[in-house]
Amino acid sequence: MLVVMKQSATEEAIARVVETIEAMGYEARPIPGHQRTAIGLVGNDGRVDSARLEGLGGVLEVISVSHPYKQVSREWKADDTIVTLANGTRIGGSEIAIMAGPCAVENEEQILGVAHTLREMGATILRGGAFKPRTSPYSFQGLGVEGLELLARAREATGLAIVTEAIDSEGVEIVKEYADIIQIGARNMQNYPLLRRAGQSGLPVLLKRGMSATIKELLLAAEYLLAEGNSQVILCERGVRSFDTHTRNLLDLTAIPVVKSLSHLPIIADPSHGTGLRSKVTPMARAAVAAGADGLMIEVHPQPDMALSDGAQSLYPEQFAELMKQIRVIARALDRGLVDMPRVAV
Amino acid sequence: MLVVMKQSATEEAIARVVETIEAMGYEARPIPGHQRTAIGLVGNDGRVDSARLEGLGGVLEVISVSHPYKQVSREWKADDTIVTLANGTRIGGSEIAIMAGPCAVENEEQILGVAHTLREMGATILRGGAFKPRTSPYSFQGLGVEGLELLARAREATGLAIVTEAIDSEGVEIVKEYADIIQIGARNMQNYPLLRRAGQSGLPVLLKRGMSATIKELLLAAEYLLAEGNSQVILCERGVRSFDTHTRNLLDLTAIPVVKSLSHLPIIADPSHGTGLRSKVTPMARAAVAAGADGLMIEVHPQPDMALSDGAQSLYPEQFAELMKQIRVIARALDRGLVDMPRVAV
Amino acid sequence: MLVVMKQSATEEAIARVVETIEAMGYEARPIPGHQRTAIGLVGNDGRVDSARLEGLGGVLEVISVSHPYKQVSREWKADDTIVTLANGTRIGGSEIAIMAGPCAVENEEQILGVAHTLREMGATILRGGAFKPRTSPYSFQGLGVEGLELLARAREATGLAIVTEAIDSEGVEIVKEYADIIQIGARNMQNYPLLRRAGQSGLPVLLKRGMSATIKELLLAAEYLLAEGNSQVILCERGVRSFDTHTRNLLDLTAIPVVKSLSHLPIIADPSHGTGLRSKVTPMARAAVAAGADGLMIEVHPQPDMALSDGAQSLYPEQFAELMKQIRVIARALDRGLVDMPRVAV
Amino acid sequence: MLVVMKQSATEEAIARVVETIEAMGYEARPIPGHQRTAIGLVGNDGRVDSARLEGLGGVLEVISVSHPYKQVSREWKADDTIVTLANGTRIGGSEIAIMAGPCAVENEEQILGVAHTLREMGATILRGGAFKPRTSPYSFQGLGVEGLELLARAREATGLAIVTEAIDSEGVEIVKEYADIIQIGARNMQNYPLLRRAGQSGLPVLLKRGMSATIKELLLAAEYLLAEGNSQVILCERGVRSFDTHTRNLLDLTAIPVVKSLSHLPIIADPSHGTGLRSKVTPMARAAVAAGADGLMIEVHPQPDMALSDGAQSLYPEQFAELMKQIRVIARALDRGLVDMPRVAV
Repeated sequence: MLVVMKQSATEEAIARVVETIEAMGYEARPIPGHQRTAIGLVGNDGRVDSARLEGLGGVLEVISVSHPYKQVSREWKADDTIVTLANGTRIGGSEIAIMAGPCAVENEEQILGVAHTLREMGATILRGGAFKPRTSPYSFQGLGVEGLELLARAREATGLAIVTEAIDSEGVEIVKEYADIIQIGARNMQNYPLLRRAGQSGLPVLLKRGMSATIKELLLAAEYLLAEGNSQVILCERGVRSFDTHTRNLLDLTAIPVVKSLSHLPIIADPSHGTGLRSKVTPMARAAVAAGADGLMIEVHPQPDMALSDGAQSLYPEQFAELMKQIRVIARALDRGLVDMPRVAV
Repeated sequence: MLVVMKQSATEEAIARVVETIEAMGYEARPIPGHQRTAIGLVGNDGRVDSARLEGLGGVLEVISVSHPYKQVSREWKADDTIVTLANGTRIGGSEIAIMAGPCAVENEEQILGVAHTLREMGATILRGGAFKPRTSPYSFQGLGVEGLELLARAREATGLAIVTEAIDSEGVEIVKEYADIIQIGARNMQNYPLLRRAGQSGLPVLLKRGMSATIKELLLAAEYLLAEGNSQVILCERGVRSFDTHTRNLLDLTAIPVVKSLSHLPIIADPSHGTGLRSKVTPMARAAVAAGADGLMIEVHPQPDMALSDGAQSLYPEQFAELMKQIRVIARALDRGLVDMPRVAV
Repeated sequence: MLVVMKQSATEEAIARVVETIEAMGYEARPIPGHQRTAIGLVGNDGRVDSARLEGLGGVLEVISVSHPYKQVSREWKADDTIVTLANGTRIGGSEIAIMAGPCAVENEEQILGVAHTLREMGATILRGGAFKPRTSPYSFQGLGVEGLELLARAREATGLAIVTEAIDSEGVEIVKEYADIIQIGARNMQNYPLLRRAGQSGLPVLLKRGMSATIKELLLAAEYLLAEGNSQVILCERGVRSFDTHTRNLLDLTAIPVVKSLSHLPIIADPSHGTGLRSKVTPMARAAVAAGADGLMIEVHPQPDMALSDGAQSLYPEQFAELMKQIRVIARALDRGLVDMPRVAV
Repeated sequence: MLVVMKQSATEEAIARVVETIEAMGYEARPIPGHQRTAIGLVGNDGRVDSARLEGLGGVLEVISVSHPYKQVSREWKADDTIVTLANGTRIGGSEIAIMAGPCAVENEEQILGVAHTLREMGATILRGGAFKPRTSPYSFQGLGVEGLELLARAREATGLAIVTEAIDSEGVEIVKEYADIIQIGARNMQNYPLLRRAGQSGLPVLLKRGMSATIKELLLAAEYLLAEGNSQVILCERGVRSFDTHTRNLLDLTAIPVVKSLSHLPIIADPSHGTGLRSKVTPMARAAVAAGADGLMIEVHPQPDMALSDGAQSLYPEQFAELMKQIRVIARALDRGLVDMPRVAV
């Protein structure tokens, strides 16, 4: 940590900063410069609260040099983390994992029908919301436990792994009985009690980036999961807030290589929420793979214009099949392939 | 709702949109124009899912005309809502209510000392965090129930009302035993199970705007509280995400007159989190009052540089006293005054 | 255009809006709804100033249905525009055009050396700044005319076409004597006198998206060029402002398919400025091609750490060669190829 | 400047950074830490290009400690700059200066009428656009020189000083013959040739903040003016881009105290463009004064709904009169007053 002093800072102000750093139990190392003095804080263990220094007289700004996250950092663990599911899907290795399915589970016919279709087309993980966080209290909020049971039936019938969202601590306890991956949605990225509970669940967790979360905040949210002893964490870029309303969100694909250099955790992309527009999902899914994503989460609905939730961003099954063909080609440019459905009896 | 068609949209595409609207149970009213056709959806009760229409062929965009929130709207209730606390403080009327106190409750001496000081200086509500949502899992997370007990002791000693945050459903049950107002923090603005529980608590709720929430989303989050039958809701502008890092957040004071024209709910400002810098708190607190805020939430700490949390944005007590003087003058320009501590025996 | 009235709007207020629309020379068509009345303005020729209606009593909001741009729109011209350069490069067709070179022209050895290398590696257009707009008045501002002469020499020696920036009207007159494409930089996207002059130059124009320009504003800026009779316009996504500072800008690749659906103009991506970090240029260049970009603009410098400008985002030549290999594979997934250097004597 | 190394950085990588810093002519001072090494660059004169260091192996990030602007800095000049106009108005001292008038000069009756009204109500500076930068090439672009002549006539008749915009270098030459202050608009904040010319004009310059400019970039743009020897510069906050479209821009009033601590230049606010909504202009104008603005720029039009440009954000004269009353009260809270029209014969 570096405390940058104003040019006008007096000797007393500088001494005061040095004393404060020492009183906090760290070493202070003043660096006089041509324009101004800066004071290095040596020994920062990630717990230093910069606020205490920012408020002192003569201080221009406090710059953090060490990163506040630990276990998620590639400096902590150099090798890529690979999350392995019961059906053999591996996320974070050389293969690209495809999660697909409708925004919300609606009924048995819908979810079983689409699950069979997706499996044939090459997905190995089925997505589908049973508990839906909705901006309006008057929108459809999901089928709840009934939806989870339908997902479990689809897994039984197809061998697909299941990823579905939990929106509160009780939900984690229920979801973990049914799912292979617990999803934490963008709105809950900084819901710390929920993160702790998901961390304790023992199940892999898919953590979506918050709507205006920096990458540092995303990694700190993941740190909550790892701090509970759960290292089976998959990050997900799903678009951030922007000033332009042409698309629902601004899909920040650069986050993919940035996360991969800072962290050992796998990261996938969700171009369905990331764009909000069916016609933009395919190009952005291709782009995510080209940027180095470890997987994709794609909304596919057998009849998008009948969907109870987010229909306008769902692909038709035939569009999804075409996308799969294209990303197989793109993956080759990165010496990667797609996860193939393991040969398990279904 | 208005469905705008592409110039190239065929008659069949237009007919398809009309049919879909009618199948959804609404009336369709085509409006042919020089450039293109638009189709009005008449009878929108706030539950129409635009996604179903956006995905149809030939549709350029779907524009929502009616607002998705109801009970929070000024069109629903024309008169200002006034939230009244046990100690007589009224929020949302002609007087401006002042909430002040440290970011976190740290110990008895700290919280009782500052409570007495603040009461003398004219605040009528004491703020202080017992459960702290922190970006890093390794930061101080608050004293918990012990902190609530200290707050209750400060209320007993001074007559100040108490506002403090709950970060999960269990927290709501505990906080409501101690506080006069339950605070929902910015990170939890879209934590819907928490909103429902806070709505059911029967206590006034202070709802902070999310870090990148639009005003529409803030009002929809408040709608969750009102939908549970709780109309004692106070909104709070506390700064939004911006591209400039000179301040921690960008305090959006225009939100104050915008909310007041759209909704009957009171809105206050938190310039401490809104700027993150002690030297900017006073000017922005003045500006908030000048913009029409119904109250202020200000961090004041007896020794900011010893604070366990957010010290750099806490005012010294003497700075707070000076601020109170200035806002008394400014309030007069709007024909308002400050809430005066009711004459209750303490 | 649709004028949405408040629920509380009186009959008089509605009549006033109708009269105003008619006084402006258009037709007014009221659409009474369950909640509120809206009034359609029929006959909007793109010149209606919504401000005049927004300010009337009882008006909630004014929604623009027709788009304010004309000639850039795909509704105006359905077929893709293809920009053809003297050396045979075609931008906007089925092939992907590669522009590469250093941020700034520094000296003859640098620019000629890199030009030969890039031609061998498959680029057909050489980029290099002679007039540099720099945030600080004390930074290197480019070699000026001397730089243009070096670029012309590089073209003569290699057959590469030249793209370089003009930063004022006089600059356009000079640049057009040397370059094949005049570049308008992000900071000048709304410099209208400059746009007019570039439009009049008769040369193809590369128009970069402004730092916080919406896609609509980008298209309106291009409209200035087309309004001067110049349809040889190439758009360029180069990253927008974001709240996260991990990268210099946030490369908005979704802009590519969005622009391609709204406009017939070609669009390329600049991942060098779009990320500002050498290690992120290659993944984002791949992603841009996968998203459907018609070309790339890449900074390549023989010795990036000796560069006078933007060295940290320049690729080493060998990195560029590797990138070219990868995008050849990705292009195939979209049934595209790369522009091959035409067989001209050099 | 501080070069922060990765934890994994080798001794060689560190040595390479040290050498590079020394080759650039500065002193390198390594600061080994518990987690990683940082290297201070001593002697930065504001010209160091961090890109050269960012690209070196083992470098995590480069942090700028000294500020790249010089003459605009309060560290360069501690006392507030006061800009004095021919009619006696002083901007930047203890008094608040009021600029008001229509968005665009439309005709003699309009501009003379409003000038007389405004003078009576207490403004001392008349605003009015003669050259209008418009997003669409098909919108009204201003009366040009004829508009300047009308402004000069209004000055003669009322004694008001004139502020009006120049949008290119030729425009500066013309505007300076008529105006007391040359305005540089938000879209041109980084139009460096225009800034240089305005700097050379010798006239006071009003520099508006760009739509997504950081405060640092605003100050660097002002540095272009001071670098030409012109210290008569007034900054203007006029709203920045935001994700919320409730208002046209997000008025960043915190910029006012931030600029005043970093720079000696005066700063005013433009709540008309800053909100884009007539009903929000008055509260935000009050807030700007309360935040410490040295002046206001307010659009006032005798008949806003007949305005040729930006009518929806123009105050009616009676609203402006009411605003003047309110800000006189607010100014007192800051021990300030309003500039009074000097007693000159008109």
